[in-house]
Amino acid sequence: MPEPPDLLSKVLALAKRRGFLWPAYEIYGGVAGFYDYGPLGAQLKASLESLWRRYYVAGEGFAELAAPVIAPEPVFRASGHLDKFSDIMVECTRCGEPFRADLLLKELFPGEAPPATLEDTARILKERNVRCPNDKSPLSEPFPFNLMFRTTIGPGTKRAGYLRPETAQAMFLDFGLLYRFFREKLPFGAVQIGRGYRNEIAPRQGIIRLREFNMAEAEVFVDPEKKKSHPRFSEVSGLKLHMVPNDGAECDLSLGEAVSRGIMAHESIAYFVGITAKILLEAGVDPAKLRFRQHAKDEMAHYAADCWDAETLLSFGWTEVVGVADRTCYDLEAHMKASGQDLRAFVRYEKPVTVEKTLVSPNHAVLGQRFKKDAKAVAKALESLEACTVEGRDFVEVDVEGRKLKVDKDCFTVKKTTDTVSGRWFTPHVIEPSYGVDRIIYSILEHAYFETKKENEDYFVLRLKPQIAPVQVAVFPLMNKDELVAVADGISATLKAAGFRTYSEAADSIGRRYARMDEIGTPFCITVDFDSLKDGTVTVRDRDTTKQVRIPSSEIVETIGGYIEGRWRIE
Amino acid sequence: MPEPPDLLSKVLALAKRRGFLWPAYEIYGGVAGFYDYGPLGAQLKASLESLWRRYYVAGEGFAELAAPVIAPEPVFRASGHLDKFSDIMVECTRCGEPFRADLLLKELFPGEAPPATLEDTARILKERNVRCPNDKSPLSEPFPFNLMFRTTIGPGTKRAGYLRPETAQAMFLDFGLLYRFFREKLPFGAVQIGRGYRNEIAPRQGIIRLREFNMAEAEVFVDPEKKKSHPRFSEVSGLKLHMVPNDGAECDLSLGEAVSRGIMAHESIAYFVGITAKILLEAGVDPAKLRFRQHAKDEMAHYAADCWDAETLLSFGWTEVVGVADRTCYDLEAHMKASGQDLRAFVRYEKPVTVEKTLVSPNHAVLGQRFKKDAKAVAKALESLEACTVEGRDFVEVDVEGRKLKVDKDCFTVKKTTDTVSGRWFTPHVIEPSYGVDRIIYSILEHAYFETKKENEDYFVLRLKPQIAPVQVAVFPLMNKDELVAVADGISATLKAAGFRTYSEAADSIGRRYARMDEIGTPFCITVDFDSLKDGTVTVRDRDTTKQVRIPSSEIVETIGGYIEGRWRIE
Repeated sequence: MPEPPDLLSKVLALAKRRGFLWPAYEIYGGVAGFYDYGPLGAQLKASLESLWRRYYVAGEGFAELAAPVIAPEPVFRASGHLDKFSDIMVECTRCGEPFRADLLLKELFPGEAPPATLEDTARILKERNVRCPNDKSPLSEPFPFNLMFRTTIGPGTKRAGYLRPETAQAMFLDFGLLYRFFREKLPFGAVQIGRGYRNEIAPRQGIIRLREFNMAEAEVFVDPEKKKSHPRFSEVSGLKLHMVPNDGAECDLSLGEAVSRGIMAHESIAYFVGITAKILLEAGVDPAKLRFRQHAKDEMAHYAADCWDAETLLSFGWTEVVGVADRTCYDLEAHMKASGQDLRAFVRYEKPVTVEKTLVSPNHAVLGQRFKKDAKAVAKALESLEACTVEGRDFVEVDVEGRKLKVDKDCFTVKKTTDTVSGRWFTPHVIEPSYGVDRIIYSILEHAYFETKKENEDYFVLRLKPQIAPVQVAVFPLMNKDELVAVADGISATLKAAGFRTYSEAADSIGRRYARMDEIGTPFCITVDFDSLKDGTVTVRDRDTTKQVRIPSSEIVETIGGYIEGRWRIE
Repeated sequence: MPEPPDLLSKVLALAKRRGFLWPAYEIYGGVAGFYDYGPLGAQLKASLESLWRRYYVAGEGFAELAAPVIAPEPVFRASGHLDKFSDIMVECTRCGEPFRADLLLKELFPGEAPPATLEDTARILKERNVRCPNDKSPLSEPFPFNLMFRTTIGPGTKRAGYLRPETAQAMFLDFGLLYRFFREKLPFGAVQIGRGYRNEIAPRQGIIRLREFNMAEAEVFVDPEKKKSHPRFSEVSGLKLHMVPNDGAECDLSLGEAVSRGIMAHESIAYFVGITAKILLEAGVDPAKLRFRQHAKDEMAHYAADCWDAETLLSFGWTEVVGVADRTCYDLEAHMKASGQDLRAFVRYEKPVTVEKTLVSPNHAVLGQRFKKDAKAVAKALESLEACTVEGRDFVEVDVEGRKLKVDKDCFTVKKTTDTVSGRWFTPHVIEPSYGVDRIIYSILEHAYFETKKENEDYFVLRLKPQIAPVQVAVFPLMNKDELVAVADGISATLKAAGFRTYSEAADSIGRRYARMDEIGTPFCITVDFDSLKDGTVTVRDRDTTKQVRIPSSEIVETIGGYIEGRWRIE
């Protein structure tokens, strides 16, 4: 007897049958790591994205960008992806099948932490005599495999391009333009919703580990001197969440406590953890299956000040769906260094401050005689020297158009002076909430999935939240009779005009139509029957309780609106 | 004196200054053919896309999909892109600069039609002794350059992937799933809005010829026997458009006339030409700068039955922004052939039809004796033979699991019989309206762009349609005083809650703030002044006339709504 399908397979089967998720390129045998969102999946995704925009664009006032996916090599050299965005892989020397070394070891030796470095991986594979799980042949030496998809921009092979592994870089590159757009005031944020790419070695688990995935990211640029506190923190500080700190026991804590006890680095990161919890719960993640896990110190990027993952409990374990990180000034500094462009911000003091400083002052008369046409360039080079490197020396060497020139001490003097400083220049820090859209969608589907038996047959219900359900209300004539259909069509048009996502159908028994709506998660079904023709009432059926009420069809928009927003329930 | 900047440069300069369009990767010197949509551009794009969805998703009831950008090679082998999606290119043998041969010849010999084939291109380049425009060196022989971006899926170089040059293929590949989703009833449509890729040899003209661009495509699957008429054609048949037929003179014709005179192939294509005109005009394309051009017979793909481009008149000439094509059964047939999967539809007759047929009927008794355990397979093989290939022969050969078996004529008889056929199988035809989102956005910007002088300074106005403007209404306190700001903030919040896109700002003179709003195309500015504190009225200023009216702030939502929808104007 075959093993009963696991929950993942069941959810994916329903998602395929009902037009949520279709394995891409299936007529050509499919390609692992690629999925199509079918009509209902694309609608679910659009609803999630619009919920996300409600918080990040309308709520926070962040600016949404739409930047290209292909980027030239210098971007990823600066960001570090070219060097570090890789997994360690091994191949079977016989069948050629590739494996991600860490996942292979995790599967073979569950409970043991997989090795972090190439050397450790090689050593453990050897010590444990690991072989190909398919044909028991020896494996290749482990080697790093860069996970970016590579292509070539334009003709020839001169210009390498890569598909972005995250949407974030465009927001860093555009920092200067954004800074001017926001009239040079911090904090501000930029967001993108779009595709990301990761050329996985062996993708699995439906839409959890895709090669082409959907992300929603915000990059919030803040003054590092002000990030400890967040002006709207009080809106989330009372929110109690299940937390897994990297140092100490799992606990249920409010965000306010997490900050005051020093578990979370500061209010800015805690605020976006709070926003994340609100979005996930509103989208339909089961509150009992949501936790926030702090990155272990050796798991965090070396530059990160703090990082918390939102994880959902799925049938195959806790799974990261959102990361909220304080990336400090790392990204902007890296791009400043690589591009030579200024990506700093300036904050004006309330009143100018006088500071003492020591500077190198060129003696233009002497320079003119001695350096002739180079005199100006030498003077400029002298002015750029730090006074402390010059004081007390007999000569200095300066660089003028690639030539090193020796400049004697009679050419300059070191002067003490005062300067009026009107403000402070600094590289903004970045708080980054980064959402994996596909993983959130899968979490919503799995948490909403219920199966039962009806008349001895399997019966499936998706308990999607009414706000996010692809179809919010179905309108059915009890039978396929013109007079019933006409009334149903009228109600359907009214609901559609009021902004609800509706569906109508007259064929099949009413029971089968309810069953189809239960399977796609439609929270409410309206039925027009023969009584409707007499007294103008219709029944409304609740998906989760299957209870029905009769209401006047003249009040349908108000009533359904109240059900969808949860203002009242069918009792 | 430098040449005055052309309109393209001016529009792009304003678009950059105000956060509509930013050349991508600018801090690294930029990469031709890649642009970022800045905050206002992304909003404009979102508004255009939602206008498009209002027609194609809400209006037509088509299903929106979201499929990956990377596709494996078999998809593009079947679609023809691998063989045919290329431009002819030449390179300078000295400086190495690549040129698109047709564009180079068009520039050098304006007015002459560029050659269509590789051979003609080679001949003309030689005859005219064309050299590199930069350094007058000889050019390479012309060669075809495939315009798809190529990458590799997974580790190794085993599996080629390409970035889709159009979103259409996913809708063809998913035809079977869509057909079931739509409960096996034609016509239905599927749409995608997303990125497309074309590795241009030498991209130019801002966002007109991008390497990574945005498309909105619909694939409408129809019964070829029914495509002549369209059920909703009457909604557009009276629409008069400027047309350029491929056979005859330019003319202004209604869509109804175009079909009845045989200029347009049928109502289905004319209907979507009509929808296209509506969308473009509603989005802000200047009606005097819009025409519909029919593809010349040799310009059309060989399989296409008819094709009309919507073209907008831009400062550099007429430019294709939308194509509406009848692609017949080409795409589905191509994928059926390549994949071996059935992508046909079935339509049930009103009542079953009786047809005569001749079939091969196995003689099971004889077969059992003669072929023993193979008897069943031989019987099946016999049944699958066409009767006409068997009649009158002494034996036939059949294939059973790779073995050829000789079957004598006493093993079967040829019988005449009748069959009841319940319907008709066919490959649907596809009507494809395909929109270039970036080109439409550039057309809107250029058509909306006006410049004038104010107090001797250049003054710019974007006359964007109120429905599509990134900011629909600005709310300004006359001066930066707490009591004015408080009232303005209240009004702004009310308008935002009512769904309008608003902007507020208190700094700078009111004139400068109006000027900034004129530049980003904000149609209405509300100003709160000291009279507002006394009598509760505010002024509303019209961008295009600069006229102002005073209205009670209690009526602000209604009034602004009326202005935006064009129900009334400021006089």
